[in-house]
Amino acid sequence: MNKSKHEAFMQAAIDEARKALAAGGIPIGCVVVRNGEIIGRGHNQRIQQNSVIKHAEMDALENTGRLRAVDYQMCTLYTILSPCPMCSGAMRLYGIKNIVIGEIITFQGDETLLISEGVSLIVLNNSECINLMNQFLQQYPEIWYEDIGK
Amino acid sequence: MNKSKHEAFMQAAIDEARKALAAGGIPIGCVVVRNGEIIGRGHNQRIQQNSVIKHAEMDALENTGRLRAVDYQMCTLYTILSPCPMCSGAMRLYGIKNIVIGEIITFQGDETLLISEGVSLIVLNNSECINLMNQFLQQYPEIWYEDIGK
Repeated sequence: MNKSKHEAFMQAAIDEARKALAAGGIPIGCVVVRNGEIIGRGHNQRIQQNSVIKHAEMDALENTGRLRAVDYQMCTLYTILSPCPMCSGAMRLYGIKNIVIGEIITFQGDETLLISEGVSLIVLNNSECINLMNQFLQQYPEIWYEDIGK
Repeated sequence: MNKSKHEAFMQAAIDEARKALAAGGIPIGCVVVRNGEIIGRGHNQRIQQNSVIKHAEMDALENTGRLRAVDYQMCTLYTILSPCPMCSGAMRLYGIKNIVIGEIITFQGDETLLISEGVSLIVLNNSECINLMNQFLQQYPEIWYEDIGK
């Protein structure tokens, strides 16, 4: 897949992040893609749903619905930020082997573990993703640190 | 904490598993304990809520609500079965350092990774937990394999 295609799906993940922000939440978004089509979308729900488990990736996986292992293997997950151990763990559980990440500057998660298990990671270094996270971090550091368990 | 205290909290996790079973779900339950008190309970919700992220441990963590990192460090999580990579990842994210597991015979998860990160694991080898899982596995193998991404 060429880079512009990745950027188009990342824009859909950014749109999810902006939905979260507009609802007073943490601006992280995610989409699940199979065969070139978005089959699930989600965003962080810590504030809106008072949920400690609905990071963007988890919300997107839940909204995607129940899939077979063979289907997960055909999926690519687009997330605006490096996935944390919980979200990485969900991808390891279900065997998602392709992850495209907006940025890994404001947070680093389980990249090393994912790569060691054969997962393909592409980091776009997308400036819109970096700006979204930087602005939120400066405004609401206490919410951000709660979300990453610090 | 002595073994009978652990068994008492494990019984509460088994009660959660039985609630799931009674509702047509996968019989895995979990409780979160802080200062000798249960502060959150949950069970697998794959069938009942059509959720691929609500394993018992995740459901219990969500039901516990938002805690600070310092609070998670004081928690012990009781689960009837070895936690999968997703649930182990949630515990790694939030810094839960004490996990009591009913059994690790019917499924093995991220024990090695958790121990390498300094988490204390106690395995009770509880026969009621083993029987619950064995019976479910024999009756509904396809649901079980879906739940563990196989």
